[in-house]
Amino acid sequence: MIQKLCIVGVGLMGGSIAKAARKRGLCWEIVGVDADPENLARALELGVIDNGFEVNAFGDFAKGAEGSDWVVIATPAGVSGRIFRDLKPVWSAEAIYTDVGSIKQSVIWAAEQTFGKVPANFVPGHPIAGAERSGVDAASEDFYLEKKVILTPTSATAPQAVRLVEDFWVSLGALVSLMEPLHHDQVFAATSHLPHVLAYALVHMLGEMDEQEEIFQYAGAGFRDFTRIASSNPQMWRDICLLNSRQIIPLLNAMGEELQQVASLMEQNSVESAENLLLYFAEARNARQRFIEQSLADLGTS
Amino acid sequence: MIQKLCIVGVGLMGGSIAKAARKRGLCWEIVGVDADPENLARALELGVIDNGFEVNAFGDFAKGAEGSDWVVIATPAGVSGRIFRDLKPVWSAEAIYTDVGSIKQSVIWAAEQTFGKVPANFVPGHPIAGAERSGVDAASEDFYLEKKVILTPTSATAPQAVRLVEDFWVSLGALVSLMEPLHHDQVFAATSHLPHVLAYALVHMLGEMDEQEEIFQYAGAGFRDFTRIASSNPQMWRDICLLNSRQIIPLLNAMGEELQQVASLMEQNSVESAENLLLYFAEARNARQRFIEQSLADLGTS
Repeated sequence: MIQKLCIVGVGLMGGSIAKAARKRGLCWEIVGVDADPENLARALELGVIDNGFEVNAFGDFAKGAEGSDWVVIATPAGVSGRIFRDLKPVWSAEAIYTDVGSIKQSVIWAAEQTFGKVPANFVPGHPIAGAERSGVDAASEDFYLEKKVILTPTSATAPQAVRLVEDFWVSLGALVSLMEPLHHDQVFAATSHLPHVLAYALVHMLGEMDEQEEIFQYAGAGFRDFTRIASSNPQMWRDICLLNSRQIIPLLNAMGEELQQVASLMEQNSVESAENLLLYFAEARNARQRFIEQSLADLGTS
Repeated sequence: MIQKLCIVGVGLMGGSIAKAARKRGLCWEIVGVDADPENLARALELGVIDNGFEVNAFGDFAKGAEGSDWVVIATPAGVSGRIFRDLKPVWSAEAIYTDVGSIKQSVIWAAEQTFGKVPANFVPGHPIAGAERSGVDAASEDFYLEKKVILTPTSATAPQAVRLVEDFWVSLGALVSLMEPLHHDQVFAATSHLPHVLAYALVHMLGEMDEQEEIFQYAGAGFRDFTRIASSNPQMWRDICLLNSRQIIPLLNAMGEELQQVASLMEQNSVESAENLLLYFAEARNARQRFIEQSLADLGTS
């Protein structure tokens, strides 16, 4: 059993871990660290945490983490470098550290930079869970129920630490799998980061057209669904794009080539190019059908 | 009151017009013309039409349309040339003709090619309504209730014919507006055709990656929404892309430039480029917010 669980960043993700761990009796005490004093006060008021420490110039952050035997870094992905530097003075070889960042290579690089090499007791993780709302008020004790959690240990990570973190997530009701950090970042560049950039780019372009021609008033439900992710938090997605740019940029170039291929099939206007365009769209639809069937199969097993 | 309403193509769109017109007592008799004998038999069985004529080599199509005082062409957009040629021998100056094609310039060109100039009694139209299902079984008498219908008369179209078609749609419960044919095709290239091509292109590209790396199993709800339109009918969208290629190709090129702009901001990795990337995403989110508010305002007035 965990004696003192420290949650760094008591927002939707971190707050939900605290509530879920408490509900399932995984820990004696929960300490919260947060940069936002209001959110911290709210977390205390709701009983999500037992003690709260502010991230400030007085080093209260380290005081909160000190003596914890389990630390979950649940901050936005872009600040992991600063978190590691703040944790370094109180880093304990006896404790387990894990995080919830959506990009894994950059977190691992930040740990390497701070500690010389990735600490054996740090297990990089990524719960695939999100919601429209944010902050501790949105946190829920069943937030991770049947959600996928990917752990991306490096060659330096202790297998025993990986097992403990895996058990922790399984106790919260999650479905855990392991992945190489690079492969993780490639997969999410393709299925999440690229679609977000496409949605932002499309709406950015049409937004300028709309100012002159009022095109949005004729856009329907298909457009609403397609652009939903362009309403995501711009700061969070800016950070994700910069942290994972090595994987996203090649996909943006490849996407540009795909669009050129379609444009060229449309331009040729021959019987053959018309057949090839049909084949292209049909292959795409089949690929999406495969994705949908896989999603349904996943639901069936969970 | 319409004496004999002829529906060319008794599918979801045409069948719904027939059912809606009958429910509202707009016509005495409804004649259906269809290339699919099974669908035609089903339309008769359901009482959607009173008489059915098959599109075949014996000219039954013309027999069905002959003597009708109101003809709605509700076939896929790609076949309007053939429809006009088949209708030409029985075209009546006393009747009103309209269509439901989603691209207007190509329909107008097809009419010009067949008749020398666009007939004064042909009113090009586009009801913004669609559904996952197709065929006469999916047709519904309230299908057009509070749906937008755009009419795109040319300079050759008789104002009286436009008024009659407008009244017809209003009687079915639709919200009618007028637009220039070219502007119509540009607006829908931007808000509908381009998003469809993007969704197909993304899924096409990722489908090939998935075969090697099984990336789809980690794709979530955002990806499902974003790619929903890539499950649309490939043949229908091939036809739309070819019919409106003059408007779509420049947008594909512009989209490629947008993606290059984002890639370049990600590549520069400076304080300034990071700020510009944030600004870019924030502008996009604001544009989508504008679209959503407009959609809600539209719902409020309808």
